[in-house]
Amino acid sequence: MPEQSPLDLADGDPFGPHNLPYGVFTTADEPDRRRLGVRIGNRVLDAGAAAYVLGSPYAVLLARPSLDPLLAAGRTAWRDVRRALTAWLTVPAHRQDVEPLLHPLDSVTLHLPYEVADYVDFYASEHHATNVGRIFRPDGDALTPNWKHLPIGYHGRSGTVVVSGTDVVRPCGQRKAPADAAPVFGPSIKLDIEAEVAFLVGAPSELGRPVALGDFREHVFGLSLLNDWSARDIQAWEYVPLGPFLGKSFATSVSAWVTPLEALDAARSAPPARDFDLLPYLDDSAEEEPGGFDLHITVAVNGHVIAEPPFSTMYWTAAQQLAHMTVNGASLRTGDLYGSGTVSGPEVHQRGSLLELTWNGRDPFELPEGKRTFLEDGDVVTMTAWAPGPDGTRVGLGEVTGRIVPSVVQ
Amino acid sequence: MPEQSPLDLADGDPFGPHNLPYGVFTTADEPDRRRLGVRIGNRVLDAGAAAYVLGSPYAVLLARPSLDPLLAAGRTAWRDVRRALTAWLTVPAHRQDVEPLLHPLDSVTLHLPYEVADYVDFYASEHHATNVGRIFRPDGDALTPNWKHLPIGYHGRSGTVVVSGTDVVRPCGQRKAPADAAPVFGPSIKLDIEAEVAFLVGAPSELGRPVALGDFREHVFGLSLLNDWSARDIQAWEYVPLGPFLGKSFATSVSAWVTPLEALDAARSAPPARDFDLLPYLDDSAEEEPGGFDLHITVAVNGHVIAEPPFSTMYWTAAQQLAHMTVNGASLRTGDLYGSGTVSGPEVHQRGSLLELTWNGRDPFELPEGKRTFLEDGDVVTMTAWAPGPDGTRVGLGEVTGRIVPSVVQ
Repeated sequence: MPEQSPLDLADGDPFGPHNLPYGVFTTADEPDRRRLGVRIGNRVLDAGAAAYVLGSPYAVLLARPSLDPLLAAGRTAWRDVRRALTAWLTVPAHRQDVEPLLHPLDSVTLHLPYEVADYVDFYASEHHATNVGRIFRPDGDALTPNWKHLPIGYHGRSGTVVVSGTDVVRPCGQRKAPADAAPVFGPSIKLDIEAEVAFLVGAPSELGRPVALGDFREHVFGLSLLNDWSARDIQAWEYVPLGPFLGKSFATSVSAWVTPLEALDAARSAPPARDFDLLPYLDDSAEEEPGGFDLHITVAVNGHVIAEPPFSTMYWTAAQQLAHMTVNGASLRTGDLYGSGTVSGPEVHQRGSLLELTWNGRDPFELPEGKRTFLEDGDVVTMTAWAPGPDGTRVGLGEVTGRIVPSVVQ
Repeated sequence: MPEQSPLDLADGDPFGPHNLPYGVFTTADEPDRRRLGVRIGNRVLDAGAAAYVLGSPYAVLLARPSLDPLLAAGRTAWRDVRRALTAWLTVPAHRQDVEPLLHPLDSVTLHLPYEVADYVDFYASEHHATNVGRIFRPDGDALTPNWKHLPIGYHGRSGTVVVSGTDVVRPCGQRKAPADAAPVFGPSIKLDIEAEVAFLVGAPSELGRPVALGDFREHVFGLSLLNDWSARDIQAWEYVPLGPFLGKSFATSVSAWVTPLEALDAARSAPPARDFDLLPYLDDSAEEEPGGFDLHITVAVNGHVIAEPPFSTMYWTAAQQLAHMTVNGASLRTGDLYGSGTVSGPEVHQRGSLLELTWNGRDPFELPEGKRTFLEDGDVVTMTAWAPGPDGTRVGLGEVTGRIVPSVVQ
């Protein structure tokens, strides 16, 4: 929609005024002053400064060092602020005021834009769960009996959620191959990725009050790409009976940009047909809005695409995950973040983890740098994605990238 | 030590000047003004006001609505502040200044004194893990092969950690008995307790830098009693393969009082002999200070004692848990809280959960109100504890109590 923007965007720019993701940035001049920014093309609008210059009542939400006040403000504020931002960036009369408040994207430093409250990770791709089941439990059923009755999830470590671009230190830990007499300690030799989509809770809920499927948009502000780094050797030895712990808790990377749900109205898609009748609190067959999102993810290692996981294939939706997470009365806080679980499609090149892509190391893949089963030190993993936007546009999701650096213990 | 206190404490008061736990309180006059308090006997010192009146440089840490600034200040500050408080409460010359700043315990409202960052729960009692293994996996080994090589733990929901005295709403969720064709939904019919000790992290650590066993006291400020409420029917259906989630996340109660580690120097005790050589980062055989704590816990339902779990029998120590939790480079934040796992001793009356006490409901116990297998609506569960203090005294731990209220769905 180039006619809507006075800002010289390229035709079809996936970060046009139909997108407007939020982030937090600093400039080289003022490295300690965090500011809320909105991405437009390859520039970042200083949203708080714009609110002041344009005399907006939303300065109280935008002239802040964090997205948290806007997140907590709730859906009506989210809608009104987005309308204001759209006007500031598209109405030609504002151009003179707005232009000086735009910073080139490559000139700013991006930060984690919110404080993560609780971090939950789900396991919602049938293809992923089936692959993992076949690899780790070859003698049993691939899916556990509960899998199609509830969205399986667990809590992760919110203190080690880091912003895209943060180096990831190869973790150390215990591992034990079946043939080993005792566990050994050292840097992980099966360092992996998980391509996921993370949903960010804005408006909190009360303790004891479940959030219904239909209230998803009252609470969830937006989404981002997430890489749930995983040390498979550490995970395999520790995870029975209480689930993953150190195999995941060393780092989880999220995009610096949060795409508001309102930018993704054209990307809503129906989830796959369900194999069982769902209990009423999870039954989304009568919901007005389809629960899925048609996000097209690309995973690259050192710039080479290794997978293209389709988010539309996820069995459980984000609304179902939210309803499940709160059905026992657990409350939500501003900044709660939950990951979809690894996104894997039915095809080999749609698998969102190296565990699946290489079948736990059995089938290496080729990079110009050499063969890979799991990640080597120096490898850079980058995930990007797009979704259908209004009128044939594309909505870009902010990338999530990270480089593996060697463990301190060798 | 009545001669040390000018405050008319009863002989042998477990909350004498050798204890001095920290909390946060409000008074009926000023219900919105949270203040840091220190318990002495059955009164609470307004610690911030005392610091001002006595011209203390620690007012900056004590005249705050939360324990967080003191927690973050680190071990030297913890020691110095404790020395100052001890002087204020024991030197007769201060009595005139301090006396007006003491509030009767039963006149104040107590609050969660810190913001919980990450909450982790361990599984460190061999007796508990063995009992649970026998109940849930009767055909397999009671302990998983990893159990004696690493302290098994998982992340829980920090947003639903509540202060002692908060009502607990019976959670709803899915359950499925083996004979059921499909899961059913409703209020939990196996609502349980877990008697635990929680360790509170004060000083943070850097991402990528493990915390060694010997640095436990540099990071951990103190401990409290914790009740990890558990819905066994929800948990049993959901927990394979990624661990407990909704069966635990509805509420976790902690004492309103945090006992500083410095009050427990006389309570340190050697953990049980280990059955396997431990990897170096967990090997505490050469540590100067014994890793255990000789805490004597009492669990009561509606005022009737049902169990007396001995914390000194825990296989894994809090220092080992901290070293393990960070060995992969995971960082610590001020307010990280970790539970020991259910405390159960070798004897039947030492078991810290109803699951174990009734062998999953097979062996009910008697209360004057009637038989119990799991908790009924209206039941009040209260845990208390004491530890040996200096010179034959006892150190009391603040109680953790909670009442079950009916589910909103019936």
